[in-house]
Amino acid sequence: MGEIREPLHELAQCGLPGALDVMGERWAFMILRAAFNGLHHFEEFLEELGIARNILSNRLAKLVEHGILVRQPLEEDRRKIQYALTEKGRDLLPAMLALRHWGMRYAGETVEDPVLVDRRDHQPIGPVVVLGHDGRVLDHADLCFIPRDQLSDRNAREGEVKKAG
Amino acid sequence: MGEIREPLHELAQCGLPGALDVMGERWAFMILRAAFNGLHHFEEFLEELGIARNILSNRLAKLVEHGILVRQPLEEDRRKIQYALTEKGRDLLPAMLALRHWGMRYAGETVEDPVLVDRRDHQPIGPVVVLGHDGRVLDHADLCFIPRDQLSDRNAREGEVKKAG
Repeated sequence: MGEIREPLHELAQCGLPGALDVMGERWAFMILRAAFNGLHHFEEFLEELGIARNILSNRLAKLVEHGILVRQPLEEDRRKIQYALTEKGRDLLPAMLALRHWGMRYAGETVEDPVLVDRRDHQPIGPVVVLGHDGRVLDHADLCFIPRDQLSDRNAREGEVKKAG
Repeated sequence: MGEIREPLHELAQCGLPGALDVMGERWAFMILRAAFNGLHHFEEFLEELGIARNILSNRLAKLVEHGILVRQPLEEDRRKIQYALTEKGRDLLPAMLALRHWGMRYAGETVEDPVLVDRRDHQPIGPVVVLGHDGRVLDHADLCFIPRDQLSDRNAREGEVKKAG
């Protein structure tokens, strides 16, 4: 990504190390995937994931602590608890699908079934991509780092990323 | 993502579990990030990451085994080894940046510096998004699963994902 390098030991100036504190772990993503698949209850996760009870308990607590899942008593029986994705949890969708696509692309024997499709036309979804502020798809070679104090004032536009297409 | 659910214990029909075999681990992403930052040598990784020597050695071997990094003897001194990203490794960029963005978005005290920008105009990059086959940006609510045998023959178009913008 170019000539300027991140200070790799300085963890507070990049979002990746913090993200990995909770998601840098196999079960965190497997539970997230199950939640996106509509699972809500401890026993469901336990049965579907083939995970040990104490590990599941530990990982659910961590996902709740980090605000990715929320514990909710059921309306009809408040002794029962369900786990629901928060907005923060749903925002992990691109990261999860990027890993999924990558895994699919490079694992010879994986045949996706069921297939993740666009609800509108039932066509398989496309790739997960990095967009520029202008909506262009950016590649590895398009990126570089610059010191924050060299950002131009055009960065007021940072927020208004155009939707692609 | 809808009514049809993945068979969550069936690991061969989704790319995520395979991806997590190698990337479902904090150091794998931290080493990948360092490689994207231009680090090539064992001693560089060791110093910049603050990782134990035996763990680094183990993780580099795993990344090489999975074809994410390649070990190359240096031209000028073939006793020296460098580690370089392969195409498979570079293809992890969207996954890494999606995690980075998510971490940045939800970690209050993180101030990105240096800032990852578009080389062309030095504007901060936009989000990492899921595209539809037609180049639309898809959200969680736009996705669903369908059984593979219900895909229409329009899926010949699966490959030709339009570039956005």
